[in-house]
Amino acid sequence: MYDRIKGFRDVYPDEMAARRRTIDTIEETARQYGFREIETPALERAAMWTDKSGDDIVDELYSFEDQGGRHVTLTPELTPTVARMVVAKQQELSKPIKWFSTRPFWRYEQVQQGRQREFYQTNVDIFGSSEPEADAEILAWAADAMTGLGLDAADFDFRISHRDILGGVLETYDADIDTEAAIRAVDKSDKIPRAEYHDLLVGAGLTAEQAEEFDDLIAAGDLEAVEEFASTERVTDAVENLRNVLEAAEDFGVREYCTISLETARGLDYYTGIVFECFDSAGEVSRSIFGGGRYDDLIEQFGGQPTPAVGVAPGHATLSLLLQRADVWPEEAVQTDYYVLQVGDTRSEAARITRALRDRGHVVETDIAGRSFGAQLEYADSINAETTVIVGEQDLANDEVTIKEMESGDQVQAPVEEFPGDLKRPTAADFS
Amino acid sequence: MYDRIKGFRDVYPDEMAARRRTIDTIEETARQYGFREIETPALERAAMWTDKSGDDIVDELYSFEDQGGRHVTLTPELTPTVARMVVAKQQELSKPIKWFSTRPFWRYEQVQQGRQREFYQTNVDIFGSSEPEADAEILAWAADAMTGLGLDAADFDFRISHRDILGGVLETYDADIDTEAAIRAVDKSDKIPRAEYHDLLVGAGLTAEQAEEFDDLIAAGDLEAVEEFASTERVTDAVENLRNVLEAAEDFGVREYCTISLETARGLDYYTGIVFECFDSAGEVSRSIFGGGRYDDLIEQFGGQPTPAVGVAPGHATLSLLLQRADVWPEEAVQTDYYVLQVGDTRSEAARITRALRDRGHVVETDIAGRSFGAQLEYADSINAETTVIVGEQDLANDEVTIKEMESGDQVQAPVEEFPGDLKRPTAADFS
Repeated sequence: MYDRIKGFRDVYPDEMAARRRTIDTIEETARQYGFREIETPALERAAMWTDKSGDDIVDELYSFEDQGGRHVTLTPELTPTVARMVVAKQQELSKPIKWFSTRPFWRYEQVQQGRQREFYQTNVDIFGSSEPEADAEILAWAADAMTGLGLDAADFDFRISHRDILGGVLETYDADIDTEAAIRAVDKSDKIPRAEYHDLLVGAGLTAEQAEEFDDLIAAGDLEAVEEFASTERVTDAVENLRNVLEAAEDFGVREYCTISLETARGLDYYTGIVFECFDSAGEVSRSIFGGGRYDDLIEQFGGQPTPAVGVAPGHATLSLLLQRADVWPEEAVQTDYYVLQVGDTRSEAARITRALRDRGHVVETDIAGRSFGAQLEYADSINAETTVIVGEQDLANDEVTIKEMESGDQVQAPVEEFPGDLKRPTAADFS
Repeated sequence: MYDRIKGFRDVYPDEMAARRRTIDTIEETARQYGFREIETPALERAAMWTDKSGDDIVDELYSFEDQGGRHVTLTPELTPTVARMVVAKQQELSKPIKWFSTRPFWRYEQVQQGRQREFYQTNVDIFGSSEPEADAEILAWAADAMTGLGLDAADFDFRISHRDILGGVLETYDADIDTEAAIRAVDKSDKIPRAEYHDLLVGAGLTAEQAEEFDDLIAAGDLEAVEEFASTERVTDAVENLRNVLEAAEDFGVREYCTISLETARGLDYYTGIVFECFDSAGEVSRSIFGGGRYDDLIEQFGGQPTPAVGVAPGHATLSLLLQRADVWPEEAVQTDYYVLQVGDTRSEAARITRALRDRGHVVETDIAGRSFGAQLEYADSINAETTVIVGEQDLANDEVTIKEMESGDQVQAPVEEFPGDLKRPTAADFS
């Protein structure tokens, strides 16, 4: 009768079980790094995005006027919100500020595999440190989250660069270059034919010869060659910073996941330093899994004290494509420790056992629908119950219950007053 | 520069730590009951609410037309969405279907204490059982979640009734009564003066005398008196169902939290059977903490096979008011197991220790901002670090690190190659 909206998903329990395990791993890793959870509004003033018009995001906003006449938008990303929150409590917060959160965002864009209009990200940010250790900690967290999910160095690759390398190289040309257009061209370079890429560079103000030279220099990714080509302070500082971040990443045990890739530019305008994107090393997931980088100017642009910042935001949709490709996506199935099956009028005893098992932390279901023995057993199967405790009138008359292991089919009687007794996770084996 | 929108909250880490503990307890209890997590869209067709016009919710909708011309709304509640999801996969889902989820909802309403325009609920529902055990399981889950949060029977009260008792009693009057208006009046009765309540009943079609009699009967909450007054099948069935649910609640160990309260009607129109609301027994939180009940007709109204349903949705804002009133709200503070403090050029060794402690599951921070000894110690204090591991150049020259317990101030040297060694949670005491 009602259909769901295009680009919005209903996640049923089996799939959700896999998603939950993934999110738990990502968040647990963030907590271990000392990132602190925050909770943020779904709606913000649309001006937070429209004021910086020209940004691609604006066309994709779900924005509207609320009943109080405010021009609001469903947030398409978290960064402006956390910047606003840092500005609002800048004096009180001890730095570095390390925050994370997992939540949905919304963009009205073309729906395709791994891209919905409602999509989940875990945002992880550090404010208040300009040191390379902060950038490296973001990389280390992301790498640890990925390996925690079962991926290894052969599965993914952080392609890393520094925003000022491209900008700095471009400004050494004696020509009137639209730097942002050129960087956007680089950002697209691995998705478009080489000729088209060169045309875009020429459109940004380079000569054909310069475009070729620039492409060769950037594609090689040789930091020494870059320094030789453009020995300005901007470029040498950027190269030094990139080297320092990689050195810290080495100390943090995650250097092996990082590849220098000067083509990595990140489309978003607020990045200022280190930028990186995570790719599928096998190339099967063709687009970037996620990206991040340093955005040292945003807090000041939002009216705060100058505050360096660096962050990353794994999107769960592309991440799950990679996990599936690498064959480490968790099984999409609910799990149940016990089903307590009632035969006849045994509700009271079944309820006692059910509560006792739940008190031990287990996932336990019992009959709440007046079902037959067969229907209950079928249901226990459908929820992947490991152990079924059969509480029957006849068994109870003998002060017994039946413990049945669902996979092996092993089945024994246990004295009812000893079940579950002192056992933490009683099985048929404990009573055979 | 940008302010947040009225009725929307920014939750910073200290408060979030308390919220997270609360949500974890609620969800863990749901999992133990075998409720399965689902994930649902923030936007739905507005028609899901506007088709049933007259509902109070419609005026409060954040609705708008999206870029594809769809009339959509930020969901003000979950029930229509889960009904839609059940209908969409009715054949595949094994019943009873037991779902839960925690997420924000949105209503444009008057902002006050415990009521924001963006608010979080944990929705818990059972589809496919009309048995009293299903209603009782919802009550049992809610009671267990509350006691899991530290509340006890003296703190809260589930006021429980059956929708057909009010309706059934009203229809025994030989008068043209607007039943829904009368039920809405009852729903408001404890918030308005008695005279006003009687006026509303009279407005709904009762005589003044009938209004008084009706009020007396309902206020007394005596099921036998109700049966005597109105011995129709509808009323006796409702009374029997209510008794059966309370009997199952007894078996499920939660009868003590339930009080028969025939004034409990629940405003929402889709309820059909048992309804209940949770109140603060101390009366300090004046409004209902949350409510729930049976809605057996909704799935059919949404185009599905007739499917009984019962659910509850604790709202976290009112719940936190109750937890604060009862003095069991978790401490609003972040927690940290270790801070690894670097003095001099010790990053590599500090990083090794940091990783080793994180691998053991601990929350560990280290310097990522090139801070002084004093600034790092102050930061360690601000994040409530329990243990600080001081990795100094001089100590390292002696192959030692310093372990400092922050609360006691106890401080010892430990051989660097033995830290953390095989210890799961090494403290100063392990090396003294």
